[in-house]
Amino acid sequence: MRDWIIERSLELPKPSLKDNTGDVDRLIKGLKKILGDVEIVPDKGLMGEVPYLLREFDYHVKVILMAEKDSYRILKILSPNYNGHLYGLALDIGTTTLVGAIVDLCKNTVVVQKDYTNPQVIIGLDILTRIHHASKENGLKELNNLLIDGVNNLLESLTGEIGIDVHDILMGSFAGNTTMTHFLLGLTPNWVIREPYIPVVNTIGTLRAKELGLNILPEAPCFVFPNVGSYFGGDLIAGILAAEIHESEGICLMVDVGTNAEVVLGNREWLVGCAGAAGPALEGGVASIGMMAQAGAIDSFVIDPETLEFRYTTIGGTSPKGICGSGLIDLVSQLFLRGMLDIRGKFVREKLRDRLVILDGIPHLLVAEDPSNDRPLLLGQPEIDALMRSKAAMFTILTTICNTVGITFADIERFYVAGTFGSYIKPISAIILGMVPDIPLERFISIGNSSLKGAIKLLRSPDYVGLVQEIRDKIMYLELNVNQEFMNLFSAAKFLPHTDLNLFPTVKGLIS
Amino acid sequence: MRDWIIERSLELPKPSLKDNTGDVDRLIKGLKKILGDVEIVPDKGLMGEVPYLLREFDYHVKVILMAEKDSYRILKILSPNYNGHLYGLALDIGTTTLVGAIVDLCKNTVVVQKDYTNPQVIIGLDILTRIHHASKENGLKELNNLLIDGVNNLLESLTGEIGIDVHDILMGSFAGNTTMTHFLLGLTPNWVIREPYIPVVNTIGTLRAKELGLNILPEAPCFVFPNVGSYFGGDLIAGILAAEIHESEGICLMVDVGTNAEVVLGNREWLVGCAGAAGPALEGGVASIGMMAQAGAIDSFVIDPETLEFRYTTIGGTSPKGICGSGLIDLVSQLFLRGMLDIRGKFVREKLRDRLVILDGIPHLLVAEDPSNDRPLLLGQPEIDALMRSKAAMFTILTTICNTVGITFADIERFYVAGTFGSYIKPISAIILGMVPDIPLERFISIGNSSLKGAIKLLRSPDYVGLVQEIRDKIMYLELNVNQEFMNLFSAAKFLPHTDLNLFPTVKGLIS
Repeated sequence: MRDWIIERSLELPKPSLKDNTGDVDRLIKGLKKILGDVEIVPDKGLMGEVPYLLREFDYHVKVILMAEKDSYRILKILSPNYNGHLYGLALDIGTTTLVGAIVDLCKNTVVVQKDYTNPQVIIGLDILTRIHHASKENGLKELNNLLIDGVNNLLESLTGEIGIDVHDILMGSFAGNTTMTHFLLGLTPNWVIREPYIPVVNTIGTLRAKELGLNILPEAPCFVFPNVGSYFGGDLIAGILAAEIHESEGICLMVDVGTNAEVVLGNREWLVGCAGAAGPALEGGVASIGMMAQAGAIDSFVIDPETLEFRYTTIGGTSPKGICGSGLIDLVSQLFLRGMLDIRGKFVREKLRDRLVILDGIPHLLVAEDPSNDRPLLLGQPEIDALMRSKAAMFTILTTICNTVGITFADIERFYVAGTFGSYIKPISAIILGMVPDIPLERFISIGNSSLKGAIKLLRSPDYVGLVQEIRDKIMYLELNVNQEFMNLFSAAKFLPHTDLNLFPTVKGLIS
Repeated sequence: MRDWIIERSLELPKPSLKDNTGDVDRLIKGLKKILGDVEIVPDKGLMGEVPYLLREFDYHVKVILMAEKDSYRILKILSPNYNGHLYGLALDIGTTTLVGAIVDLCKNTVVVQKDYTNPQVIIGLDILTRIHHASKENGLKELNNLLIDGVNNLLESLTGEIGIDVHDILMGSFAGNTTMTHFLLGLTPNWVIREPYIPVVNTIGTLRAKELGLNILPEAPCFVFPNVGSYFGGDLIAGILAAEIHESEGICLMVDVGTNAEVVLGNREWLVGCAGAAGPALEGGVASIGMMAQAGAIDSFVIDPETLEFRYTTIGGTSPKGICGSGLIDLVSQLFLRGMLDIRGKFVREKLRDRLVILDGIPHLLVAEDPSNDRPLLLGQPEIDALMRSKAAMFTILTTICNTVGITFADIERFYVAGTFGSYIKPISAIILGMVPDIPLERFISIGNSSLKGAIKLLRSPDYVGLVQEIRDKIMYLELNVNQEFMNLFSAAKFLPHTDLNLFPTVKGLIS
């Protein structure tokens, strides 16, 4: 595998009347002696510096070259004693959060990683508001500027932490959903959300940092992950790369829950992807007490089978401020196991007793009381109903994608759950809910930020660029038609765990 | 030979739920169907426009593609009915004058051509003053800006004349001496004039118009002719391309008289070049009445053999304002033929009689009286002396370069004289002076602005880029050592026509 970066020290013959080769040409000639007959391209931006740098270091220099398609580009000319690290930026462009990592390009290790709220949230928390804003005058430019400013702020914070200059970052790798990628490039997402859902571009390739307005080395190549369509973005392709699904002999499935639930199924032979509206409720985004998986969020829940006492943990161990997706799924599965929810997901009064509160005529569950908060944490029946629809949608999507390729859940060797959602969720709770199939627990793998991981991986070698394109081209995108068959599956999945309990032998065992 | 520009009309399949390919990718896919498996690169700048343009023209478009090294770049997307011309800019970047031509890229014909004074003259008329200015703070930037502004002004004037938009110009081709090329690119010429005379760069290649700051299509590729060294610039290489010396079976010689006299000798097998200080006096630059070949300049001169009457013509037929290079060479050769100058180039008093005026103790020749000008045109003995040194230097350079490769003047099949100097000069006068060898007159060819012609030629095909590099790499640059042998040759050439009259049988016949 080729490296992105080549670093070479070389001593050039000094200019003389007998050898009046130009400085740039002299440098290239010297490099070709070492590297063989490859094409070497000087940067326009660097060209003007070459005569000064060569003389400063007395024609004995260290050169940093960056691999391009069929050539190498001279990125830096340094003292022969230079011994600094070479860095790249990997970025996951989330709708809510930007996650950036500075990567040591020689070792492909993360030196520092940070989150930064996507500044576009001031336009709108949800992506649709932003897409509509983009169609206003200067709206697209504004959204593009907000995002780029956000990335530049994040960069400053990242580089500040390890005490390097932003110009020491020699390349970038960017993964995001299709709309965020459009915003990054300043492209209109107008047709992304309108039937037949056409992105401006699928395969973006490599741009220069200065073309994007990013404050790293201006000539740094920035790879942007391609998308398969409006609802299957570069973040998922980066995820496939990270999980190595494209190399797996056995069948893998990966679920990323965000604005949508996005699913990839496949192995080294084939890849199928789809996306469907099953997201926010699963992340706790619908519940009024729902919150992101951060300090104060209830992230696990147990109801004592004997005393029926509610026991929970919060992130950071503080008093409870709300509940995150994994906490909610734990809670609902526990309620069901203890008979406090019926198979339709409705509160069972006689079991909940004084934990059931009627507010504006709507039954609510008293989840927890926070002594530091005068407002107790309440979860309404409609919020549970929303979760029921979401989990049913998720299971239906999983069933549909497996049916389409003619496999059963048992054939899935690895079930990746991506995102912060995936980091906290207990697979058993999701199985009890009937949200994910009842397969052996050890097959579930929490992969974390797979989009960022894929972006980091790309910084290993330029050969990954071709590989990513191969992955992209291989993916068959399954348009989920909400037809009668889908609705039938969906209706059956709207029960806890399912109308067909034989699909969930583990749950059958637990409740019997 | 490939064309720079490919123009294709195509009707793309319209997007549907079954085919959600992105707009840019759809366009590329459509183009590949026509062009075969070539790499097609969209422009970052154009990408954002693609969805709007495709919809505006209902997915039936005309696309303009520009050839690159191994790929094609999409430059424009137009209505399928678009029938406009496709233009390129060829530019000769002279120290004194910029000469630009708008070229029809399909026919490789010049549509309009104009001169523009190089705005850098406000820093200094001669190139050395500018090079020194470049080393001052912001001096280089100032010189670069002046030049770019000049080119942009010239462009406005060129495009205004034919009523096209500057953005209709899709590529550029630039030839200039090494220092002017450095100024074009904003590179320091500091080491160009300092031993051992090292340019920042020899082979420049192709840049984007926006990188240069040129006001044509921002993404337009701009080819800059390479140089062989500080004193053998891209203008000469363009000249070789224009004169087709690199294809000639017979030996050709090309002389370009500017700040220096630059000489190329060769054929399709080999090329030798050199440059020497023989210029300004030949162009009339030293004489106080010297002027450029423009309206009012005496450009031809005859002294009646019977009456010894002075007869001359002026450019534009106006009253005489001064004398240009060709007029001066005519005049001096006629003075010699009529015995008014001796073989040392000194005025012969008894022959010149009242045409000889002593001014401040220095003999001057009354060349002409201009009734509209109270100042008669006078040429001093020191000015003739300067011309004698220049013509001797020129002949010595020609002798040296021929000696070096072991040929005689008789072997030269074509003797190209480039520049405005070459357009007006009478070869017989130059022979009488002993400035050029006494070869058959029909072998002399005035080639005009060979630098511009070469730049125009490059706009024919991208294959010329490789050819130009081959020409450059083939040239052996001859460093003229002013050693004893050179001084001996020079001394012998400081006579009219030469100490060895047998070298000039034609002149021998005329004066006998």
